[in-house]
Amino acid sequence: MGFSVTDNKKIVIIGCGAGGGTAAQFARKTDRKAAITMFEKGKYPQYSKCGLPHVISGEIPEFNSLIEFSEEWFQKERIDLFLETTVEKIDSKKQIVIAKKGNRQIRKKYDSLIIATGAKPSIPPMQNILENGKLLDGVYALRTIDNGKQISSRIKKGGKATIVGAGLVGLEMADSLHKKGMDVSVVEALPDILASTLDGDMCEPILKEMNKNINIFTNHLAIKAEEKEGKIKGVVIQDKGTNEEKQLKTDVLVIAAGTKPEITLAENSGCKIGKTGGIVVNEQSETSKKNVYAVGDCTQYEDFVTKEPIIVGLGSIVVRQGIAAGTNAAGSTYILPDGFLLTRTSEFFGIEIAAVGPVKDACQNIPVIYGKFKGSSRPEYFPGGEAIAMKVGIHEETGMILSAQAVGHNASQRINTMACAILSGINVEDFKKLETAYAPPIAPTLDVLTLVCDIASLKRIRKREIT
Amino acid sequence: MGFSVTDNKKIVIIGCGAGGGTAAQFARKTDRKAAITMFEKGKYPQYSKCGLPHVISGEIPEFNSLIEFSEEWFQKERIDLFLETTVEKIDSKKQIVIAKKGNRQIRKKYDSLIIATGAKPSIPPMQNILENGKLLDGVYALRTIDNGKQISSRIKKGGKATIVGAGLVGLEMADSLHKKGMDVSVVEALPDILASTLDGDMCEPILKEMNKNINIFTNHLAIKAEEKEGKIKGVVIQDKGTNEEKQLKTDVLVIAAGTKPEITLAENSGCKIGKTGGIVVNEQSETSKKNVYAVGDCTQYEDFVTKEPIIVGLGSIVVRQGIAAGTNAAGSTYILPDGFLLTRTSEFFGIEIAAVGPVKDACQNIPVIYGKFKGSSRPEYFPGGEAIAMKVGIHEETGMILSAQAVGHNASQRINTMACAILSGINVEDFKKLETAYAPPIAPTLDVLTLVCDIASLKRIRKREIT
Repeated sequence: MGFSVTDNKKIVIIGCGAGGGTAAQFARKTDRKAAITMFEKGKYPQYSKCGLPHVISGEIPEFNSLIEFSEEWFQKERIDLFLETTVEKIDSKKQIVIAKKGNRQIRKKYDSLIIATGAKPSIPPMQNILENGKLLDGVYALRTIDNGKQISSRIKKGGKATIVGAGLVGLEMADSLHKKGMDVSVVEALPDILASTLDGDMCEPILKEMNKNINIFTNHLAIKAEEKEGKIKGVVIQDKGTNEEKQLKTDVLVIAAGTKPEITLAENSGCKIGKTGGIVVNEQSETSKKNVYAVGDCTQYEDFVTKEPIIVGLGSIVVRQGIAAGTNAAGSTYILPDGFLLTRTSEFFGIEIAAVGPVKDACQNIPVIYGKFKGSSRPEYFPGGEAIAMKVGIHEETGMILSAQAVGHNASQRINTMACAILSGINVEDFKKLETAYAPPIAPTLDVLTLVCDIASLKRIRKREIT
Repeated sequence: MGFSVTDNKKIVIIGCGAGGGTAAQFARKTDRKAAITMFEKGKYPQYSKCGLPHVISGEIPEFNSLIEFSEEWFQKERIDLFLETTVEKIDSKKQIVIAKKGNRQIRKKYDSLIIATGAKPSIPPMQNILENGKLLDGVYALRTIDNGKQISSRIKKGGKATIVGAGLVGLEMADSLHKKGMDVSVVEALPDILASTLDGDMCEPILKEMNKNINIFTNHLAIKAEEKEGKIKGVVIQDKGTNEEKQLKTDVLVIAAGTKPEITLAENSGCKIGKTGGIVVNEQSETSKKNVYAVGDCTQYEDFVTKEPIIVGLGSIVVRQGIAAGTNAAGSTYILPDGFLLTRTSEFFGIEIAAVGPVKDACQNIPVIYGKFKGSSRPEYFPGGEAIAMKVGIHEETGMILSAQAVGHNASQRINTMACAILSGINVEDFKKLETAYAPPIAPTLDVLTLVCDIASLKRIRKREIT
């Protein structure tokens, strides 16, 4: 008996977020006998971080609803989960992980290690925001259930909220706090909102809706927090063009200015760190160290289209890396595609947005031709059609589809089709002839999906005739 | 001046439905100078036949709303449209079309001819249904605006309606008449509803909803119409298994038992007719006769997957053939894909359905492995998720995706993604790794789209390991 136990594969996973949890699940599926141990520094097992804004808004009833796999689930799957346990060191020579839970030291030998340490929020250089390394009372970054609870505790109808960062999380939070009746301001240092999600020209309908409901300050820096009795009471923002300063009263300040990969353990154990600051992983989600895998927000992989290194930061990708790392760590083989498509979606102020592939600014070295088209979800004669605007980027020489963005009706599912187009390598000249599903209440005979490709194709053909 | 006129290309189009109208539009786009003439036997210019059930239901305000291109539009585009004009003969040697409008004969020479004569309804062999070759009063097939108006005139709340045929049109009509408060029965000769759209096992949620709202008699023949004072008053139906007969009272009988291509003119002029009964056309939508094109419900083309000849009968395809025929007839080149995908969708009794590729019964000669999965439009923790069931067929040897069916939330857009997968020839082992768009209110991290492919892939891998 003791003999068989020592013979079983030992898998250790650091971090029980979506990446680590998925890895554990697939390691177990792959090897029913492996000894799987997980260390998580927080007090909750795997839960959905992406769901936090929707608990704050009230759409999801409570924070505990977000827990996707309970402690009981891990128990049932015979996965040893240590919560509130901090890993202090990875000894990659001896293949041992050393962790601490309270005063107790835990040492675990591993055959395969999976690092899923996630990321920490980037805190912009604002005056007064930190006190002894801790955020001022009333200032929060949204990374954990506890952060969510803290923000929720500051919500009051008619109160004022300020959000730093107009990326996906920033705008989701803006929508949530607006839904709770707060007067919301968003401060963004860049000239455009959603800069890594959509091109500026696709953001107009969103900006229009947002301007009706909240205050947006693009091209503004949040430079100073103002406090009273140790609590936030205001933010000073500065126009990057004119240097003009403005004071915003606020009862709560949410920092949504991106994240930095949490790589200390990996770096100290000798894993290669990429130029983006993430742990370099390959198509098996393996690091530069043999038998050491890494998944999720702490990793760097390639962009499918540009082949440039990118930081992983989407739940959809994290889960797919988790499948790969778990399966491979347990001895089977799962190969990820040759880069990530970055398929992404969100919804705020009643508008669904989605995109796949690099935004325009990330395509500097590729000759891209763009087509744009705005249509309706239904034929003209059928009342109730909803607007859907799309943009598609194609390679000028090859005609390959490289990127797509959609704003409006069923944006996410339309983008899934474009993701398939990019993954499969189909040419725009073929794709534009795709038979899309048609029925008057559902879609017109020619969907925006192919009409936008007609436009891009036409521009490409004209350009190639002329030059 | 007269010189330049005779020099311009002469294009004649027979039929101003979706196919003929689209062909005219693209012929004009391609050649701004061509002399384009259209003959249409009905009294309306291009309108949406597929919209008819939705005018009857009241979703679309009036029948005239369905007209997509008005007489004025054709005038503006300098297309000579003759309504209520019957083409009597195509003289393909002299390249002349001879038509009649009232007592006036019209002869038009053509350089390119486009035949878009559509289809006529199949009338099942029911006793009493025809009187002097005309349908009994109160019995209608739904092909034209006038048919729609006739059916509408028979609607009364609490009245009884019977529909023969449980295909897409039959069920759309059942839903429409039910919405108008009628007591609806549907009679279908086959054991399953929607036989050419979905496999029987995918129809369960639809049947469940329908059984709550209307009466469905599958495996039943409508054998006799009963009349009183020349008007329909009932239908006798017969169980094909037990031969048992049943009488259904009815105030209106709608025949939705499919259509037959209208090919007389084409056949007489020497165009090859295929074994399905449609005019054989190629990937340029050209018939066996040079410079003679055909589009729409009167044509036969190939199934993309099975390569078997199929009758064209979907608005989405008709329009794409129209683009091809119009462009090619006007002297440019438009090549259709090597077969049609048959991407299709509809919605009835609150359920959206969609499919692409052949149903199981049409795949007798191909080794197909099926995967099925039922999921939700949202992660479990997010209230309000809607059910979505999918089935995917893959080639046992190559792993190519051959078909997909979806019932529920956003079925049509999910099927568009599968259509792209089939068209691009992507393997299920690659497709199952597709990054789909994820955000808690919109979709789970892993969409049913790829989960259903995981299942099919697993079944395929297991089968190939064993055999």
